[in-house]
Amino acid sequence: MAFYPVVVSPFLLPLRKFPKRLFFIPVLLFGIVFLVTSKAVVSSIQKYVRAANYISAAQIFLGDNFLLERPLSFADIKPRLLGHWGTAPGVNFIYANLNYLIKKHQAEMLFILGPGHGYAGLQSNLFMEGTLGKYFPFATQDLNGLGHVIKNFSWPYGFPSHTNPGTPGAILEGGELGYSLATAYGAVLDNPDLIAACVVGDGEAETGAIATAWHLSKFIDPSTNGAVLPILHLNGYKISGPTIFGRMSNADLLSLFKGSGYTPYVVEGEDEGVYEQMLETLEKCYQEIREIQKNAKTGKKLMGVPRWPMIILKTPKGWTGIKELGGLKVEGNYPSHQVVAAHAKEDVKELHAVENWLKSYNFGELFDPKKGFIKEIKDLVPDPSLAMGNSKYARGGKEVMKDLKLPPAEQFAEDAKIPGTMGSSSMRRAGLYLNEVFRLNKDVRNFRMLSPDETYSNKLDAIFETTSRASVMPSEPWDKDMGRDGRMMEMLSEHSLQGLMQGYVLTGRHAVFASYEAFVQIIASMADQYAKFISVMRNYPWHGQIPSLNYILTSSGWRQEHNGFSHQNPGFIDDMLHKRGCFTRIFFPPDGNSTLAVLKDSQ
Amino acid sequence: MAFYPVVVSPFLLPLRKFPKRLFFIPVLLFGIVFLVTSKAVVSSIQKYVRAANYISAAQIFLGDNFLLERPLSFADIKPRLLGHWGTAPGVNFIYANLNYLIKKHQAEMLFILGPGHGYAGLQSNLFMEGTLGKYFPFATQDLNGLGHVIKNFSWPYGFPSHTNPGTPGAILEGGELGYSLATAYGAVLDNPDLIAACVVGDGEAETGAIATAWHLSKFIDPSTNGAVLPILHLNGYKISGPTIFGRMSNADLLSLFKGSGYTPYVVEGEDEGVYEQMLETLEKCYQEIREIQKNAKTGKKLMGVPRWPMIILKTPKGWTGIKELGGLKVEGNYPSHQVVAAHAKEDVKELHAVENWLKSYNFGELFDPKKGFIKEIKDLVPDPSLAMGNSKYARGGKEVMKDLKLPPAEQFAEDAKIPGTMGSSSMRRAGLYLNEVFRLNKDVRNFRMLSPDETYSNKLDAIFETTSRASVMPSEPWDKDMGRDGRMMEMLSEHSLQGLMQGYVLTGRHAVFASYEAFVQIIASMADQYAKFISVMRNYPWHGQIPSLNYILTSSGWRQEHNGFSHQNPGFIDDMLHKRGCFTRIFFPPDGNSTLAVLKDSQ
Repeated sequence: MAFYPVVVSPFLLPLRKFPKRLFFIPVLLFGIVFLVTSKAVVSSIQKYVRAANYISAAQIFLGDNFLLERPLSFADIKPRLLGHWGTAPGVNFIYANLNYLIKKHQAEMLFILGPGHGYAGLQSNLFMEGTLGKYFPFATQDLNGLGHVIKNFSWPYGFPSHTNPGTPGAILEGGELGYSLATAYGAVLDNPDLIAACVVGDGEAETGAIATAWHLSKFIDPSTNGAVLPILHLNGYKISGPTIFGRMSNADLLSLFKGSGYTPYVVEGEDEGVYEQMLETLEKCYQEIREIQKNAKTGKKLMGVPRWPMIILKTPKGWTGIKELGGLKVEGNYPSHQVVAAHAKEDVKELHAVENWLKSYNFGELFDPKKGFIKEIKDLVPDPSLAMGNSKYARGGKEVMKDLKLPPAEQFAEDAKIPGTMGSSSMRRAGLYLNEVFRLNKDVRNFRMLSPDETYSNKLDAIFETTSRASVMPSEPWDKDMGRDGRMMEMLSEHSLQGLMQGYVLTGRHAVFASYEAFVQIIASMADQYAKFISVMRNYPWHGQIPSLNYILTSSGWRQEHNGFSHQNPGFIDDMLHKRGCFTRIFFPPDGNSTLAVLKDSQ
Repeated sequence: MAFYPVVVSPFLLPLRKFPKRLFFIPVLLFGIVFLVTSKAVVSSIQKYVRAANYISAAQIFLGDNFLLERPLSFADIKPRLLGHWGTAPGVNFIYANLNYLIKKHQAEMLFILGPGHGYAGLQSNLFMEGTLGKYFPFATQDLNGLGHVIKNFSWPYGFPSHTNPGTPGAILEGGELGYSLATAYGAVLDNPDLIAACVVGDGEAETGAIATAWHLSKFIDPSTNGAVLPILHLNGYKISGPTIFGRMSNADLLSLFKGSGYTPYVVEGEDEGVYEQMLETLEKCYQEIREIQKNAKTGKKLMGVPRWPMIILKTPKGWTGIKELGGLKVEGNYPSHQVVAAHAKEDVKELHAVENWLKSYNFGELFDPKKGFIKEIKDLVPDPSLAMGNSKYARGGKEVMKDLKLPPAEQFAEDAKIPGTMGSSSMRRAGLYLNEVFRLNKDVRNFRMLSPDETYSNKLDAIFETTSRASVMPSEPWDKDMGRDGRMMEMLSEHSLQGLMQGYVLTGRHAVFASYEAFVQIIASMADQYAKFISVMRNYPWHGQIPSLNYILTSSGWRQEHNGFSHQNPGFIDDMLHKRGCFTRIFFPPDGNSTLAVLKDSQ
């Protein structure tokens, strides 16, 4: 593995030991060694990406002849062409580079793919790293396995066209857009060794949910949580036109993300140079992440918000694909978004365009029908324990589930021997109970609460005896109940909190979301999508148990006469009632004691 | 009106006419004149704000003795204290300064208040400008009227505690947060003379809907649309803790909003200086807006995205209120958010704190029980035709309604004489029809379409024969169907588009929102809130008719087997079915011809 050098920055060399005039020698030597190894790494990554791009495109088009052993014919083309090509080459490029980073540092990484419609790309990587074969035994890394994957992509009873609950390593569906970043932040909470690489597409970047989730870094204490490495992947186009972020200048992009609290790096291009940039930038980001975490743990530079690195990656839409078709610019333009040559099954010109495109990858050089991928590619793949598709964090079950200790409901019950006794506030009781939950589970770090309307407003502030509100922002002497290690997440963004909760719970930990009843309707759509996700997840036996999402709806309609009609909406409960009883349970505890009983037994 | 000088920048003076050595004389003279008039203006605005602050606080606390003619007693305090003080002084400060700007330039402005819980503030201004009295005849500008407003704020059958559909000049409810900015952008579309001043609170700024709505300036062609002047009002605190934006450095804030495409100005402080800054900055913003519009209309500097000005206003939470209570910092801290001295009806200390606070405004100097407000204050109020509470844009009805011409459905019908004939796609038919709607109404500029998933994807692209997709971003030679004056709004943000539509329709124009059925659920909550808003609006006879919101749901569940389960969700229709028939109508046209009939008759 000569091409995985540990890159030591020259500035770390013991400079004082050398006479000044000899200084240039080690620097020069180092430069040459670095250049050679870096060239070798880039060459391997390029080969890996070429293979992944071939498989991505082949999945969309080919039903047979998937090694192109004979001239491509209409019969080889699938009868219904489905799948998104445009983002796939970028996804492959990112995945390959992350693989190199993981191997080099033996880093534990989770891959969160915002543009999950680019599943042809992700599945290629899962196949190449062997995790697809682990969970889908026909996907062996040989000729048969390759054929199985290509033929069964976007095929009835085969593999879906989008990232889905059956995708190894995935905790995000490739459907409704906007939730990648908050999910990634949720996954790294209380997982200090984990780095979640989160790809945000430039379509998704236009959603409100993403736009505000950039602020979530302001809640992450680097000494007790993992890190998110956001990669804003701008290929510039949606289905039929340009994206907002794709038309912003680099100066504006850098300004926007600096202002959002990050250290942004632009990686841009389409030739070898972009490979070199990405290699260097990812290494820099990794070092910055570890530096921030080290400083936080050793108490250095604790003040202020850490400026985590992020990458703005600009590569052409449909990079390496068909350049032009019927006079229309395809690569680097919107026609690359989905199926590129949609009439390849009837139109000879399009068929040839697909054939020439697929041949351009010289897949035969990279894959042997018997031995599988060439050594250079295999060497880039991390060990199964670190392969992103095989991440334990995405599988639920015993490996990651951290059981929650719950106190008995009686501990906080009120005397209600005389029928009709008016008890105290249900929420005050709930606050006492939840405070005890925080206390009992303090060392396990397996429980968080979230609220968009603030804990005090929801009368749950008894929890602040044990915990506080998470914040790494600058503090003032008069602040109360704020803490870098707080377990209560307060942000006026229902979307961000729901995303955080999904990321936290899907990786095996427990959470309660407290919201005014009226405004929780804001995330009805997210809750719908989540219910479908876990419904499908149950079909895959290798997915272990995960905890439930728990909502406490406060300030229900009848308590909102003072704030008015705008604060009344029972829509979320209606929405939940549409789901089957095996997915949702809804309780209406009429008093404090019943609330305690529900809290004890609903988890 | 000596204190309303037309401020001419010295750089506009004909310099060449003066010998160089005399140049300093006009500059010096101008400087002195400007200084004197500016001091006088600031002094008037300060008096106006003092009066508004007094009325704001009095509304929250006082049931009687509202001129403090005798020492305040428990009996004078309302039995249930309700209302948000914290943001009110900032709202009053902004409103007063906007009034000055409106008078000076005879500008047509609409006031969109994001933090609508600060209604005690807004209502004070509506009372002082006389529009409250116009719509609520008891609110006369004398002792009786003042007493009526103060006593009936947050009172059964009186005035609500939040901005609401009965608020003169309001097209935004003060409930669910996040929609102010998109609503403001919707209101100025096709209203080239209008400036919507949009106050975004720092709580609301955390929502996803606001976070992405900043990008909406990239859709505004200054030559045919009005302008939005966003005022991000940072007082730093929510109900019980600091806000994200309140803890960001000015450097980060400026960087964020520059990156978002604006020219941001920070106005910050609590003394006279902040009044001077605001006066100067608002004038600068106004000039920049008019300059951008003039350049666009004359064809100068058309390229690129105009960098509209915006203001980041930082004033203390509960500015001028109680400084400290029981050892707790109140002004400039979260306890100022809502009712400041919540026990003023039982606790002597709190009662005295309220009394001293109210007395600090010397309201007697500013208001005469018989003659009403002093001349300096009255002179600041714009004429009724320009008073923001009296804006015609917020009233619906004939003044702003622009009737939509609809072609007959038959014009695009298919031959279906033989029963069972399979027609063409419903959406293709709808596209032809909507194209004709654009054509018929081209000159009236009263119709827009919006879509988060793109028109091509929804098969409605026949409209591009007549219109295009709005964008003022840089273009590429291969772009198609993009135009600075496009009437189709495409952005991957359901929230932004729904907000735009609400702003557009509430100001009397027509719109159709086309969305995949599954993802329109993202704005179910907004649609719920809107339905409640128009339901209450109907109680106010001075509110005229407005057009309906129209949704076309495409790609319904059964057509989404290829994209998968994540693209299936009938939840929005369920949600609409909960509403009464007088608010919603739902059609399920089974074919192209029925779709045409529905489009013709559902408007």
